[in-house]
Amino acid sequence: MAGKALGMISGALTALATLTGAAPVAPGPLMVRIAELEIDPARIDAYKALLAEEVEASVRLEPGVLSLSAVEINDAPGQIRLLEVYASQSAYEAHLKSPQFIKYKTLTAPMVRSLRLIPTTPIKLCAKSGKAAGAGAFCR
Amino acid sequence: MAGKALGMISGALTALATLTGAAPVAPGPLMVRIAELEIDPARIDAYKALLAEEVEASVRLEPGVLSLSAVEINDAPGQIRLLEVYASQSAYEAHLKSPQFIKYKTLTAPMVRSLRLIPTTPIKLCAKSGKAAGAGAFCR
Repeated sequence: MAGKALGMISGALTALATLTGAAPVAPGPLMVRIAELEIDPARIDAYKALLAEEVEASVRLEPGVLSLSAVEINDAPGQIRLLEVYASQSAYEAHLKSPQFIKYKTLTAPMVRSLRLIPTTPIKLCAKSGKAAGAGAFCR
Repeated sequence: MAGKALGMISGALTALATLTGAAPVAPGPLMVRIAELEIDPARIDAYKALLAEEVEASVRLEPGVLSLSAVEINDAPGQIRLLEVYASQSAYEAHLKSPQFIKYKTLTAPMVRSLRLIPTTPIKLCAKSGKAAGAGAFCR
């Protein structure tokens, strides 16, 4: 009975969040993933500009997007790798509905030759707390 | 003549840093790399404990180690991926001489079946500034 009641409450909250447009960021284990992309080398500069814009906006605007790291493999034109860290599965799902992600996905679709998503489990994620020299460190 | 004098000063500073044990962290472009490792599945728990300790200590103690992210690929026992962000090439070289790296490298050597190092160029690296909810964001 208690389980059923909790399920109903959870469902009602999700419906409410959908109605109000609020991002349903529930607490949970981190969602960490690697994305491997191959981009049309002829369009790589336009792709990188759109990706950089999306990465910056997502981490700045979305509470559940904790870190996005985008790199290009040297001497392999068009080979992009991303490490994506979300606060939870629901934070990731909210990200998929964000204006910045939808813009990126729509405009880059014709540039992407292949996309491989690799689910991972974090072992240790540590970083300096900011850009300034002497910034402290923290780990997730 | 000026070039020769600068070379002598640079050499003297490097020698001094070596003598005093100070890390010669010169400014420069970020050094960003992916490491792909395959670990003996029978020793994966011991490996992950040593890696987590090294990641935490390196980012906390070394000014030029900006971020280390270590993950394990799901459903692929022993497949480890690292994203490493150093302030410069010289920060990376200093890291190789650090006690925490030498300890990790020595103790994990018998556990590592293969290691592939992939040089990359950053497109955009963004993260929340700390662990607290509501932490601001910054990009490199």
